[in-house]
Amino acid sequence: MAARATRQKTAEPPSEPRLSIRIDLTSGGRIGPGKVALLEEIGRAGSISAAGRAMRMSYRRAWELVEDLNRTLGSPVVTTSAGGSGGGGASLTEAGEALVAEYRAIEAATSLAAKRHLTTLTRVGRKD
Amino acid sequence: MAARATRQKTAEPPSEPRLSIRIDLTSGGRIGPGKVALLEEIGRAGSISAAGRAMRMSYRRAWELVEDLNRTLGSPVVTTSAGGSGGGGASLTEAGEALVAEYRAIEAATSLAAKRHLTTLTRVGRKD
Repeated sequence: MAARATRQKTAEPPSEPRLSIRIDLTSGGRIGPGKVALLEEIGRAGSISAAGRAMRMSYRRAWELVEDLNRTLGSPVVTTSAGGSGGGGASLTEAGEALVAEYRAIEAATSLAAKRHLTTLTRVGRKD
Repeated sequence: MAARATRQKTAEPPSEPRLSIRIDLTSGGRIGPGKVALLEEIGRAGSISAAGRAMRMSYRRAWELVEDLNRTLGSPVVTTSAGGSGGGGASLTEAGEALVAEYRAIEAATSLAAKRHLTTLTRVGRKD
């Protein structure tokens, strides 16, 4: 059973319908907004624990998601270095960077493709 | 907290990367593949309980998802009739039919838009 990113809670409903995507890969793994956001945060923060904190998940949880992505892609998405004082750092591998870039590209392309339909969907069930 | 459809377990990984979509509406509700499949099954089976059985969920769970959709759209997606022997029937309302149609249209449009990128994604992490 693959680890799943927790559904991201939003404080309030979106101001317009919002599409989100998940991609099931042939390896059996799934990529979705939670794992991709975690990778981006690891890239920014330079640390898995700091990224986990920023996303309000435990270090253990963050590691599980990274490990799940490593398995899914068959190649590490994050490299870690044993650090001195202050602990080790982490950064995205080429595969990790490519994964984030492709996911965001798919997200942009699908959002554009869905735009007109989402407007129609807003009217379903509404009696104006 | 909105009811969520259970992630549909697939017996085996897909033969090519597969996109799935979720839509967060301005009402705060979310529409995804599980709820839409349930609606379609209700339309086919003419009964919420039969649809629930076909999707291996409890009657209670199926009802919760329907109620969640009703709230999300502000209009019923399913109508039920008290039946004689054999229990009552259920069918999709116009809003329910429209919701399914729009979701499937968005799905088709986004899958098409993602197609080229999904092929690229397949190569991420692979060392050929």
